[in-house]
Amino acid sequence: MSTPSVSNDIEEGLALKPKFDAAGLLTCVATDAGTGEVLMVAHMNEEALRKTIASGEVWYFSRSRNALWRKGETSGHVQRVVEMRTDCDQDAIWIRVEQSGGACHTGRRSCFYRMIGRTEDGGARLSFVDAKRQFDPNAVYRK
Amino acid sequence: MSTPSVSNDIEEGLALKPKFDAAGLLTCVATDAGTGEVLMVAHMNEEALRKTIASGEVWYFSRSRNALWRKGETSGHVQRVVEMRTDCDQDAIWIRVEQSGGACHTGRRSCFYRMIGRTEDGGARLSFVDAKRQFDPNAVYRK
Repeated sequence: MSTPSVSNDIEEGLALKPKFDAAGLLTCVATDAGTGEVLMVAHMNEEALRKTIASGEVWYFSRSRNALWRKGETSGHVQRVVEMRTDCDQDAIWIRVEQSGGACHTGRRSCFYRMIGRTEDGGARLSFVDAKRQFDPNAVYRK
Repeated sequence: MSTPSVSNDIEEGLALKPKFDAAGLLTCVATDAGTGEVLMVAHMNEEALRKTIASGEVWYFSRSRNALWRKGETSGHVQRVVEMRTDCDQDAIWIRVEQSGGACHTGRRSCFYRMIGRTEDGGARLSFVDAKRQFDPNAVYRK
């Protein structure tokens, strides 16, 4: 009998064995469970992952604020977990969510409100797409 | 007149100004342009981003192999760009692609073939979902 390799265990096993990076984080992609739209990309540490699984509401770890963060705790725009998945090497999480209001701190539904286009000279140019604001960030975050 | 802040320029401007991390990388999410399914999460350096925009085929930077990598160059399972977007702070890319074959090196359509479920004692347990193999990785990668 052959001994299952570590790789097989991580890739084909049924135990959650998250592979945190050097900073103790996983990359998380949140998509709208209804439309499939990517809402945001953020990070989770071990505690954020545990709280998300336990509560059914999404917690992240903010690298800029170096703090655990329940999505929507300031804005009220929480994310309810519909389904969570992990990837082959267990260093990324995909969460399908019900998003209240908007996911982006700029007031948009998604953080991905600009398309990358190619210019005639081979360069890149952005254009707004699905960029309508769902809320006024100055009011919500009291800047 | 007020002077636009750097933040406004990055978040509200139309110039692509990617914010690479300390390792020179952006996080990229590839979704199936037809179904919205998240296929994979990977990274791009400046050259991978430039080649992807120029060619319409997706290039990544492999952290494990420390090398530029045209998706599908070994397996033939290329990703054709349907739409590219950047996020508010320009440190992540969302690409909607036409994926030939499967995106995952294990042979599945998506790397996210396991769902995270909650056990009665509050722990986590994985279960396979959409995990049918599209190809035999041992044949494709000649392991």
